[in-house]
Amino acid sequence: MMTVGRYLATRLKQLGAGHVFGLPGDFNLNLLDEILAADGLTWTGSANELNAAYSADGYARAGRRVGALVTTYGVGELSAINGTAGSFAEHVPVAHIVGMPPRAALLSGARVHHSLLDGDHYHFVRMFDEVTAAQVVLGEDPASAIDDILTTMLTKSRPVYIGVPLDVAQALVPSDRLHTKITPAASDPAAVAAFESALRARLDDVPGVVLLVGHGVHRRGLEPDIETLAGFPGVRIATQAGAKAILDEGHPASLGTYFGAETLTASTRRLVDEAALLVMVGTAVSDFMTGFFTHGYTPENAVELALDHARIGHAVYPGVRLADSLASLRLAMAETKFTPVSGVKPDERDRPTGRRPQSAPLDQQTLWQELQEWLEPDTIVIAEAGTAFYGALDLTLPERSDLLGQPVWSSIGYTIPATLGAALARPDRRPVLLVGDGAAQLTVQEFGRLFGQDNKPVVFLLDNDGYTVERKIQSPDASYQDIVRWDWSLVPRALGAAGAQVHDVRTVGELRASLRKARDRTAGHFVRLRLNRHDAPRLLLALAAGITGANREARPGSPRH
Amino acid sequence: MMTVGRYLATRLKQLGAGHVFGLPGDFNLNLLDEILAADGLTWTGSANELNAAYSADGYARAGRRVGALVTTYGVGELSAINGTAGSFAEHVPVAHIVGMPPRAALLSGARVHHSLLDGDHYHFVRMFDEVTAAQVVLGEDPASAIDDILTTMLTKSRPVYIGVPLDVAQALVPSDRLHTKITPAASDPAAVAAFESALRARLDDVPGVVLLVGHGVHRRGLEPDIETLAGFPGVRIATQAGAKAILDEGHPASLGTYFGAETLTASTRRLVDEAALLVMVGTAVSDFMTGFFTHGYTPENAVELALDHARIGHAVYPGVRLADSLASLRLAMAETKFTPVSGVKPDERDRPTGRRPQSAPLDQQTLWQELQEWLEPDTIVIAEAGTAFYGALDLTLPERSDLLGQPVWSSIGYTIPATLGAALARPDRRPVLLVGDGAAQLTVQEFGRLFGQDNKPVVFLLDNDGYTVERKIQSPDASYQDIVRWDWSLVPRALGAAGAQVHDVRTVGELRASLRKARDRTAGHFVRLRLNRHDAPRLLLALAAGITGANREARPGSPRH
Repeated sequence: MMTVGRYLATRLKQLGAGHVFGLPGDFNLNLLDEILAADGLTWTGSANELNAAYSADGYARAGRRVGALVTTYGVGELSAINGTAGSFAEHVPVAHIVGMPPRAALLSGARVHHSLLDGDHYHFVRMFDEVTAAQVVLGEDPASAIDDILTTMLTKSRPVYIGVPLDVAQALVPSDRLHTKITPAASDPAAVAAFESALRARLDDVPGVVLLVGHGVHRRGLEPDIETLAGFPGVRIATQAGAKAILDEGHPASLGTYFGAETLTASTRRLVDEAALLVMVGTAVSDFMTGFFTHGYTPENAVELALDHARIGHAVYPGVRLADSLASLRLAMAETKFTPVSGVKPDERDRPTGRRPQSAPLDQQTLWQELQEWLEPDTIVIAEAGTAFYGALDLTLPERSDLLGQPVWSSIGYTIPATLGAALARPDRRPVLLVGDGAAQLTVQEFGRLFGQDNKPVVFLLDNDGYTVERKIQSPDASYQDIVRWDWSLVPRALGAAGAQVHDVRTVGELRASLRKARDRTAGHFVRLRLNRHDAPRLLLALAAGITGANREARPGSPRH
Repeated sequence: MMTVGRYLATRLKQLGAGHVFGLPGDFNLNLLDEILAADGLTWTGSANELNAAYSADGYARAGRRVGALVTTYGVGELSAINGTAGSFAEHVPVAHIVGMPPRAALLSGARVHHSLLDGDHYHFVRMFDEVTAAQVVLGEDPASAIDDILTTMLTKSRPVYIGVPLDVAQALVPSDRLHTKITPAASDPAAVAAFESALRARLDDVPGVVLLVGHGVHRRGLEPDIETLAGFPGVRIATQAGAKAILDEGHPASLGTYFGAETLTASTRRLVDEAALLVMVGTAVSDFMTGFFTHGYTPENAVELALDHARIGHAVYPGVRLADSLASLRLAMAETKFTPVSGVKPDERDRPTGRRPQSAPLDQQTLWQELQEWLEPDTIVIAEAGTAFYGALDLTLPERSDLLGQPVWSSIGYTIPATLGAALARPDRRPVLLVGDGAAQLTVQEFGRLFGQDNKPVVFLLDNDGYTVERKIQSPDASYQDIVRWDWSLVPRALGAAGAQVHDVRTVGELRASLRKARDRTAGHFVRLRLNRHDAPRLLLALAAGITGANREARPGSPRH
């Protein structure tokens, strides 16, 4: 027998969640005591709950595993809910565990603090119903309830909510279930067979395929399957923003990242839009993913391999899961007689060129050029929604690299805590964070942990005096675009990151010097980049123009209104 | 005619919300442009959305008016939702305004960023249904919808949710409605008459009354009525934690703050528990309000004047609003022949006494003794849930002072942004913030605005190395009680509060010297108080013991389980 808290912790550890994030509160102390007593789990105290949710998400993404956070009832869980919603929108499996009042108090509607004093203790779990794949408040048979909901988390690759009443945390359950591994629900074999047969027939009609790969592959850790497919003749592979570098960008079959009309390289755009057969693998279709719906392909005509179903044109195959549909594709491909084709290298004519003098003030173009040369293999680039992410998308990442960002949910402030999670999940890779000063203010309090212990991240702060992405959309000089000016050079020391090497970069020459120093992996680095508030990279300008256009069309009096 | 955005802003200004808090996002830029163009409204950019919600709440509380914040769709609104839930739990009228995608996108289920990509754009408004008094997404007849929901906000004294689709923000509405003032729903005159008559009869049977006053009076700004009642013979007035100093604590009728078994002064406890007639005015009954249900009075036998109804024993009078039931009580009292009684001064024997030498390390007892002597009239004390709030409750506040805190919702991190709100709402009063280092980490990024412009707050940071309140409840040395150590003396300069005078206090003598300097109201002060992690004030220890007891009883195997 073992306590429920320890059982839950052991299950999380089995699924790869070796670090648990969160904050203590009086309704979760029993639970935390049990979790801390479990083998092999490390508690990582967060500075606030939203940061905990972001860290757990970054941990799951970078580690291709599950993440976990523990918050307290009401105040804690609601502070974190935006982070959990982001995990839901972008298919990240995270267990959000909430310490609740004891069962007797829940049943009697006790008027306790952290509640609305109306006797209803289920307000918050109902709120999580909108942004999690499943919710449970543990009571009868908690071990089986835990196994069920963790299975759902894996199957849907989405967050779940686990409420643990204070008394249940220390109730005893049999531990023998732990020998049975938790796995996602399996595919329906008959559906897989039917799909595979139809897929073979579909492949007969075409001279080759283009794969458009999205975040589903990233979440399920199916990169090896993509690499195998990339080795077949007749295959080219483009990625969406949520899965950049899922195939090494130097691979012969790589087309780079597709972004509709704003795709960096014209031939990549053409090859995707005009593919004889487009196979969409774990993709998301949204405004930012399609260059504001400027994609030229027709999703209805494509083959789609989604997380929990497959589709060929208008024929849907429920119960065919991504790993199995990819296996079917691999088997079918092995029998094709496609002629070899090659991918597309980014056309250097499409990139900004030209070197600026050492003494010139730092600008966005130089920044991205220099970063391109500086990045080394085995890096996790984490880039904040806005200037940073849309700058990073135009980079060609080195081997064994990863790009984390939130192209769907796009919640500013996400990346600082997510970088902490990524650093803990993949100590073998170097975390490189790119974040604007406006976004960094939202979640800056995680700096201490980010630079703590064995973590040696490189943080590039794009210090450009406010919300540049919003300035590019509308009213660039409105007062709401401004933020309070901080003395960023002092921030690491003030917030518990005294070990970070601080660089203050105003010129092109200073950037080059700092980048040389930041090759030293024995220290963390904080590089403050002074940039003009109106300067922005190519793709950010295109994105902002897309938003401005959509907004203009929606206005009263516009032709389409 | 005027735009919807400007109409809404004008209505908010009429209700006293001269400052609006929040952050820009691409779905609210149209709205912000309109709000900024309205007369007399000041945009106060927050560092993140939770902070915006806390600031709007503090603004409404301190100003006895409404508060307002603007966030963007999805990511912004959900980041703020815990703050809005706190306003709901503690009856603070705040308009949470959300810039949404244009109506056409909402109707078509467009796959836009900040959504869950499932075509349902109403997930988030449904979440707010749990923690706001009403929700609306503006569409047809927006001016009338705005007036209706603001009326509900005033009537219920609770937050409301106003979704403004991007195109609706600039649609035109007639401005003539603005001449009609928005007021809360009126009482039912017949119900008031019936209540008043029954109340007179009830008063005939008793020799005097004790009023127990709660946060409802604070929210509705009804302090003058309480002061009037305090002037009648036979009246004594105790307060709950949510309404401390609602009557000047030096008033002859004052009994101070009631807290069940943990009430500071024994005679206050006895007078409330054994009152011939207890009148509960705008009270909340919860664990923290009653000293963990150790109150000796029987709520069912009391007269209750609630925000939207009155009650005499078991007879409820719906439709009798607090202002009117207080007026009825005043009229009825004027006809009684009660003999004069006096209140209770805090018994000095119940307070810790004794002076420590100047060179002694600073301790909690000395801190509260010295603060008691230092505080001046016209102060707003804001105290964070935990050591700070429960220390402050034992103070006797000077004239024309106010105590802000969250005794029901108790969300740590609330006070830094709330102090900004209080400072802007009441520039005639000095904000004095007491906050622990653990709690301060959650929302520290608001320091820049807090010490910005004309604000000259005094911030006392109780720097005691983690979550002392949780240490007192359970597992005092568990790793989850620790936080990252910051160099707090650098924090104001780093985070844009360079104008604050920084004090670093380790000894009793240094505290006295700093308090002398902090009398200077021409500057803001940041006073870092180095305290032992296990030291705590009286009431915090009692509270923690109450929680520990409740938790123990709930455990499996306990007698009551």
